[in-house]
Amino acid sequence: MKNNQTASAMPIHKYRPYHEQIAVDLPDRTWPSKRITEAPRWCAVDLRDGNQALIDPMSPERKRIMFDLLVGMGYKEIEVGFPSASQTDFDFVRSLIDEGAIPDDVTIQVLTQAREHLITRTYESIAGAKQAIVHLYNSTSVLQRDVVFRTDRQGIVDIALEGVRLCLEAEKTIPETAVFYEYSPESYTGTELEFARDICNQVIEAFDATPERPVIINLPATVEMATPNVYADSIEWMHRNLARRDSVILSLHPHNDRGTGIAAAELGYLAGADRIEGCLFGNGERTGNVDLVALGINLFTQGIDPQIDFSDLDMVKRTAEHCNQLPVHERSPWAGDLVYTAFSGSHQDAIKKGFEAMASTAAARGVDVDELEWAVPYLPVDPKDLGRSYEAVIRVNSQSGKGGVAYLLKADHAIDLPRKLQIEFSGVVQARTDTEGGEMTSPHIWSIFQDEYLPAADTDDKWGRFELTRTSTSSDMSGETTLEVDLRIGDDVESTSGRGTGPIAAFIAVLADHGVQVKLYDYVEHTLSASGDAQAAAYVELDVDGTRLWGVGIDADISTASLKAIVSAVNRALRATSGARRLAAV
Amino acid sequence: MKNNQTASAMPIHKYRPYHEQIAVDLPDRTWPSKRITEAPRWCAVDLRDGNQALIDPMSPERKRIMFDLLVGMGYKEIEVGFPSASQTDFDFVRSLIDEGAIPDDVTIQVLTQAREHLITRTYESIAGAKQAIVHLYNSTSVLQRDVVFRTDRQGIVDIALEGVRLCLEAEKTIPETAVFYEYSPESYTGTELEFARDICNQVIEAFDATPERPVIINLPATVEMATPNVYADSIEWMHRNLARRDSVILSLHPHNDRGTGIAAAELGYLAGADRIEGCLFGNGERTGNVDLVALGINLFTQGIDPQIDFSDLDMVKRTAEHCNQLPVHERSPWAGDLVYTAFSGSHQDAIKKGFEAMASTAAARGVDVDELEWAVPYLPVDPKDLGRSYEAVIRVNSQSGKGGVAYLLKADHAIDLPRKLQIEFSGVVQARTDTEGGEMTSPHIWSIFQDEYLPAADTDDKWGRFELTRTSTSSDMSGETTLEVDLRIGDDVESTSGRGTGPIAAFIAVLADHGVQVKLYDYVEHTLSASGDAQAAAYVELDVDGTRLWGVGIDADISTASLKAIVSAVNRALRATSGARRLAAV
Repeated sequence: MKNNQTASAMPIHKYRPYHEQIAVDLPDRTWPSKRITEAPRWCAVDLRDGNQALIDPMSPERKRIMFDLLVGMGYKEIEVGFPSASQTDFDFVRSLIDEGAIPDDVTIQVLTQAREHLITRTYESIAGAKQAIVHLYNSTSVLQRDVVFRTDRQGIVDIALEGVRLCLEAEKTIPETAVFYEYSPESYTGTELEFARDICNQVIEAFDATPERPVIINLPATVEMATPNVYADSIEWMHRNLARRDSVILSLHPHNDRGTGIAAAELGYLAGADRIEGCLFGNGERTGNVDLVALGINLFTQGIDPQIDFSDLDMVKRTAEHCNQLPVHERSPWAGDLVYTAFSGSHQDAIKKGFEAMASTAAARGVDVDELEWAVPYLPVDPKDLGRSYEAVIRVNSQSGKGGVAYLLKADHAIDLPRKLQIEFSGVVQARTDTEGGEMTSPHIWSIFQDEYLPAADTDDKWGRFELTRTSTSSDMSGETTLEVDLRIGDDVESTSGRGTGPIAAFIAVLADHGVQVKLYDYVEHTLSASGDAQAAAYVELDVDGTRLWGVGIDADISTASLKAIVSAVNRALRATSGARRLAAV
Repeated sequence: MKNNQTASAMPIHKYRPYHEQIAVDLPDRTWPSKRITEAPRWCAVDLRDGNQALIDPMSPERKRIMFDLLVGMGYKEIEVGFPSASQTDFDFVRSLIDEGAIPDDVTIQVLTQAREHLITRTYESIAGAKQAIVHLYNSTSVLQRDVVFRTDRQGIVDIALEGVRLCLEAEKTIPETAVFYEYSPESYTGTELEFARDICNQVIEAFDATPERPVIINLPATVEMATPNVYADSIEWMHRNLARRDSVILSLHPHNDRGTGIAAAELGYLAGADRIEGCLFGNGERTGNVDLVALGINLFTQGIDPQIDFSDLDMVKRTAEHCNQLPVHERSPWAGDLVYTAFSGSHQDAIKKGFEAMASTAAARGVDVDELEWAVPYLPVDPKDLGRSYEAVIRVNSQSGKGGVAYLLKADHAIDLPRKLQIEFSGVVQARTDTEGGEMTSPHIWSIFQDEYLPAADTDDKWGRFELTRTSTSSDMSGETTLEVDLRIGDDVESTSGRGTGPIAAFIAVLADHGVQVKLYDYVEHTLSASGDAQAAAYVELDVDGTRLWGVGIDADISTASLKAIVSAVNRALRATSGARRLAAV
């Protein structure tokens, strides 16, 4: 069975293998026989390295939302900006301190280059904080020395040591703040190991690191240049060769150019590191920083406490997407919309049997199923532990071969369903086609969609228990919105009102007053029209009295569309639980 | 510097570490000291494992496009379906054979379970092919034996051996086809190593593998359950312990549950594997299969020929997105829209110095810069080698803090720019604000956008050299479209026509007749309105006479919008090269 692959025309002559650039030689490495047994110290750099890589950088409001998210999840070291390089970063760091937004057990970290006016400005930014990490860096790689700084090794060492001196000087100006230090030989992966060791050790000495006041030495894979075992070898070598090792916190900062950033972090941690810097969902320059969510949940699935709360991963994802204005991919580890979805019949069958076996074991032992070890094929984690749920999808292709359900809704009706609603709706379509048969044409799909999610066009035929007949909102600029609605409940129309941070929150309060408990999981909207009579579609994923499902609203007013979407979901939930009649297909 | 992290409430008691489930003990491993020196045998499984994980499975037309793409890139082993499980897969395999779509040096592969009627059907599907790989699998893991198959090890071995017997029997029915075999102990990562070895060795014996007719033994990380070094250890153990090793092609099939699929493939390949199965951009169940694009280009950047053509990566991405109806993420290794974009000033400065250093070295040596070793900071590959380009982005925030340029265009005008066009347009906005100053309001951004990409509203003020004044298309059902256009060229209007596979191709032919050479790189469209007078926006990325840039068209007719977008790009290119006057801001 001959291998028929042939040479490509790719210009391989332009590239030299990593081992010809940087020698990493550690035949007696020990990391491959080690196991991870506890969480590293985490440092979240979303507000600096992540933000730096966004087309639309975060507004101060979005930065604050990200900061509060990271704190809420349990991150205790958070790099909040590069205040000497950016006025908005400076202002943001000041606002955190001046508004008392930093809990006592959280340490902010700020990046700076080793230049006097930048260092002065950096200390101005952190004055008044209880504690802070000043993160000093300079580039050390062969390439940057040659091309960017045009200096030799000593010149690079001098830059670093001058930075240390300036920091220790500036520290005296803010005696009320406990200052700790981090040093990064930037572009570490392109730096000769001996030189990386030498410069780090001189910095460690210059800071006079002690076990009581250790220095963080951060070894960034600024560009990921080799397979992750090579990074691990280099980390083990540094771990063995750093001065005052008991006074050093060895930190990793992997980027993901080759797609192996998560592996590099894990193997580097095995190799002796103490700490990992990364971003939620791997945001960051180019291919991103290492993904803190993947790293944390990888630990969790091995029975190791990540010391971070991932129990509402959709909320984390939604918040990160809002802050970064970048999507989390459908296949992003643990978090993507498709990660707990099984399409193949054999997978679905095995998963079903796994759930059944756990249920009967629990019954036999007289314990709750959550007391048992998780053991379901094709699901390496219980989605429930992350606030998600398993979905079995039976796929529906239109028989005309023109594409599937979501494609036709988008092409013919500009309805762009969120991925998880696509999954839910595919089940609705499948149930209807199983019952009714017939060809899966675009008009048929549209009629099923309207019937399931939208109010009946015929107003005599009231769809669901609730209907909005009038809404108005007002705000007194206090951050609270008052919503007044005329709400049809069954056959009666009632004027009622609620308050909340916005119309959606206010409407959820109204519903609670009427005995319907609603929690919002996801919210997506898009415009259907750019003309004067613009229509918008809103999609909400709710928990309604314990049932989790989607609702859809369409209206010229985006705010009204979102309220209609909530009504849609609530009515669907009530219909499902009451077994109320289903409208016939149009 | 105390570590303030505290225990989370995550239910870690439900999870047991991998090493307590499956023992992998190889203290004398050799793979960490090895280096990759040549490409593995690749097998692309996009049409089976990838397709199986799509909400909208590929239509026969999309399947064929994917097949032709994979062949064109240089893949020689392509898993094309699970024909015994799906009529559409069966029909697709037949169509490939009956239409002569399979080059002589390409081997199709089909998956089957070890059951008699499925095997019979599988051989019917491949009859007439010059050669084919029949890929037999059954589940072997502890969990699947207990929960799904409720049988012991011998029962699982019997299933496999019965499969082998049925295959060898069925093979006689298609003597004109050279049949090769692949066996997968599915859920290998959940299988005791000794048992995986035993069942594989019995299958190898039963197939009577020889060096001339080897058997592929494929060891899937059906679920990725541990750090990638553990997978590599298990592969090296199997590599040492498989029978008739010279008659076995050892194959990997890593999934990406933990986000370390690429690393698992690379370390497993170091550990003795010969072959890797994966999908373009990591499509596949849950978090996907290993990403063949990342693996191939990782080799390329080390000076190793991937034996695959990645020189037009945007085309590959566009085609895969079309076939899978799933996006490739902005930060996907080597391929994402943001991967060659630098936002930070220090990165941009270093990159600029890197380019300058290469240019002066080339000049000093009297050689073309493409003869030199690539050495630019923060760019681990020359984007040009992949058909991409480096972009330095200066980010523009609206001063009102309401968001950036792309956000405002979308919120206020329903214009949803493709990511790469966002990057291009940010440069346009920056140039204008540098010149004109002023607050970056939404109306100002919209006026810059119209001025740059859209024809002037004032028809007396002709924008650009070309303008479409009438179009009509007709098709004779031969697969060719005839386009007739009235085209204003300067001040003259000319009636002209062209032919192509569609209106865009036909219009490109018209332009070629008028001395403008255009190549299409990217095409994106979306609806602006769902009402009767729907508007659509089309975005095209073109190469116009050697300049690569975007054009935008808006029209009620999507086809006309796309032609307007081409005109927009062509006029922009001509304006840029001729230095023609720029319209003043509206």
